[in-house]
Amino acid sequence: MSLQPQRTIDELKELRALTGDENGAQRVAWTETWDKARAWFKDKLNGLPVEYEMDEGGNVWVTLRGASDKALLIGGHLDSVPNGGWLDGCLNVLAGLEVLRRIAEEGTPPVTVRLVDWADEEGARFGRSLIGSSAASGTFNPDEARQLKDKQGISLADALARYGLSLDTMTQAHRQMANAAAYLELHIEQGPVLESMGLPVGVVIGTFGVERHMIRFTGQAAHSGSTPMDKRRDAFAAAAKLGLEIRDIARRHGGVCTMGSVVTRPGIVTAVVGECDASLDQRNMDADALAAMYREAREASERFAQEEKVTVEWSKLWSIHPILFHPDLIELADEAVREVCGASHRLPSGPLHDSAEVARIGIPTVMLFAQSLHGISHNKIEDTKEEDIAMSVQALDRLATKTIAWMLK
Amino acid sequence: MSLQPQRTIDELKELRALTGDENGAQRVAWTETWDKARAWFKDKLNGLPVEYEMDEGGNVWVTLRGASDKALLIGGHLDSVPNGGWLDGCLNVLAGLEVLRRIAEEGTPPVTVRLVDWADEEGARFGRSLIGSSAASGTFNPDEARQLKDKQGISLADALARYGLSLDTMTQAHRQMANAAAYLELHIEQGPVLESMGLPVGVVIGTFGVERHMIRFTGQAAHSGSTPMDKRRDAFAAAAKLGLEIRDIARRHGGVCTMGSVVTRPGIVTAVVGECDASLDQRNMDADALAAMYREAREASERFAQEEKVTVEWSKLWSIHPILFHPDLIELADEAVREVCGASHRLPSGPLHDSAEVARIGIPTVMLFAQSLHGISHNKIEDTKEEDIAMSVQALDRLATKTIAWMLK
Repeated sequence: MSLQPQRTIDELKELRALTGDENGAQRVAWTETWDKARAWFKDKLNGLPVEYEMDEGGNVWVTLRGASDKALLIGGHLDSVPNGGWLDGCLNVLAGLEVLRRIAEEGTPPVTVRLVDWADEEGARFGRSLIGSSAASGTFNPDEARQLKDKQGISLADALARYGLSLDTMTQAHRQMANAAAYLELHIEQGPVLESMGLPVGVVIGTFGVERHMIRFTGQAAHSGSTPMDKRRDAFAAAAKLGLEIRDIARRHGGVCTMGSVVTRPGIVTAVVGECDASLDQRNMDADALAAMYREAREASERFAQEEKVTVEWSKLWSIHPILFHPDLIELADEAVREVCGASHRLPSGPLHDSAEVARIGIPTVMLFAQSLHGISHNKIEDTKEEDIAMSVQALDRLATKTIAWMLK
Repeated sequence: MSLQPQRTIDELKELRALTGDENGAQRVAWTETWDKARAWFKDKLNGLPVEYEMDEGGNVWVTLRGASDKALLIGGHLDSVPNGGWLDGCLNVLAGLEVLRRIAEEGTPPVTVRLVDWADEEGARFGRSLIGSSAASGTFNPDEARQLKDKQGISLADALARYGLSLDTMTQAHRQMANAAAYLELHIEQGPVLESMGLPVGVVIGTFGVERHMIRFTGQAAHSGSTPMDKRRDAFAAAAKLGLEIRDIARRHGGVCTMGSVVTRPGIVTAVVGECDASLDQRNMDADALAAMYREAREASERFAQEEKVTVEWSKLWSIHPILFHPDLIELADEAVREVCGASHRLPSGPLHDSAEVARIGIPTVMLFAQSLHGISHNKIEDTKEEDIAMSVQALDRLATKTIAWMLK
């Protein structure tokens, strides 16, 4: 028996039945449903010549020893958001399992192959995502995590204790990276690009850098009836201008800009807006282009504030640099996808993934995206055609073979 | 002794001390503080040759009988919003009282002169404004008012009962209009126009017609990172375009348009806006121009919806026709203001006033506006320079003299 992509599809459905309900997947990290998913996964390893281990970051490692200690890592995450989809994260793990089975069947591989189920990629319960992978990369900061609590007031530290884990020893998981020579991850796209191009699988060139800010325009609240148009200092008008301008800025620099939250005050029918808070999320694969997008949006906001006789203040929410995947692995991934699907496409990832944590510490990394129907995820209607899932498993398998050959060069 | 505008200023301060606190005026209709204001006002009538009456609409009438039953009405309202200003409504009543004193001092006037303190102009407690004046005009609808309750759950009907009033007999107040031949009202502008022109007093040509709608744009919520700009169906983009377009529409037709409330959903930093609700308040003195403003905004919203691949739905909140004041009285008011202040200006009123209720049943009506500092009202910082208050009382007095002469023609 060689690779059986249909088995991956069957196992995805089995996991859905076990850990989902009428509202979708419920495998939130550090909950009993997540434990159940991990126990089910462990059972699936029976009969495989592998070692099983949970590390200090809560990550589960399945290791198939090879002729060399040099390791090929394949990763994913079994955890989901509440009311999540049936593919996000677990497709990666189960496709990786199928590849591991195929490799194990062929005897001792030339390099060690390790499948990792990262802990708490989603951050759904405590608001901190990429917990396990950042512990392994060493970027996890226990002091920043110490005050994290869930909605019931339970701290992350207490939740970890139930698994024998401690915030202060999390980054000891970094030892797992010692022999890592390459990292592969398959994920659903969670966006509309591959669907719009009619492609089942694509190659991810890296994860976007992000600049995220809140912008406050302050004008003067005034009566909608008694204040002539030329006497107004309308904070919403400035925000509206910026909301439209960021689209040109994004297109000019090949990134994306989103004004997702807009709040007007006093926010009533009969008052000119005195204060308007707008969020701005900007993403780009190129650090210079991202910096230019940010600078141009800021300049535009100041120009519009002046035009509307209002003031503007920016406050930073969060930012991260772009993380580029490895050029050789991108080439190999492109080959693998073309061999399986006939055509490929290279695209950036808007959302972050565990792969970003691995890539940022210099381990050669690449990702594959499987097409998402309607670009929807984090929702029970998240879906991918079964034939596309099957092709994505095949492409990951081919990529693993090519990557092992590349590691041996 | 002739007209003493300083007495009006002194009485305004006296009323403020009696019925205000550190947060502003508290003369909310149908409350004990309002009762206290009315009792204080009644005391001020001692020694004047007038009759005092409260009608079925809760309005207080002070009547100085003249040689003719034909009546000149001068009106205002002692009630305020909670935390209101020291002038809104009560300037009208106290300036009218001063004019009445001056006329009474000169002996029996050729026509009857009546000062009215309208009940519940603000609608602050039950959400229905112009209660007393609409009872007198006959447009008050008891069935629509029957379900009105305050925040404590007390019904308007129960509040009225404490004053011996009943919803079903309110419109019997209409009998007060039988001999009315003209109606005059002085009010603060509540807007910035006169201040920006450096004029103490202006003449109001009528009250705006209003079209008030909620507009819902529906696109598709999507991840801010994984959704390229050209794949978005951004509901906020369409609302932003409309928010800017309505300003051109307003200028083109000489009215005002305001987008005061904008709500985005899901309304988070990392999601393209799937649904955006925006309010639109449009006002114009000309009915045809108002209709055109509404039509053009609607057409524009449909055009923008199409451009942004979203849908748009309109729902009506409220509308009222423009109400024009009497051309002869506007002329007389203009003369009076020019004689007192040296210069005058004609302007529409954005907010509604009791005068609109009187004018809509065909009684010749005009209003004067006193300058508002910073255009602010319904707030404890509402203010007007004392010399401007004095001039507004003088202008009202001259206008009363001219109007009586006009009534006798």
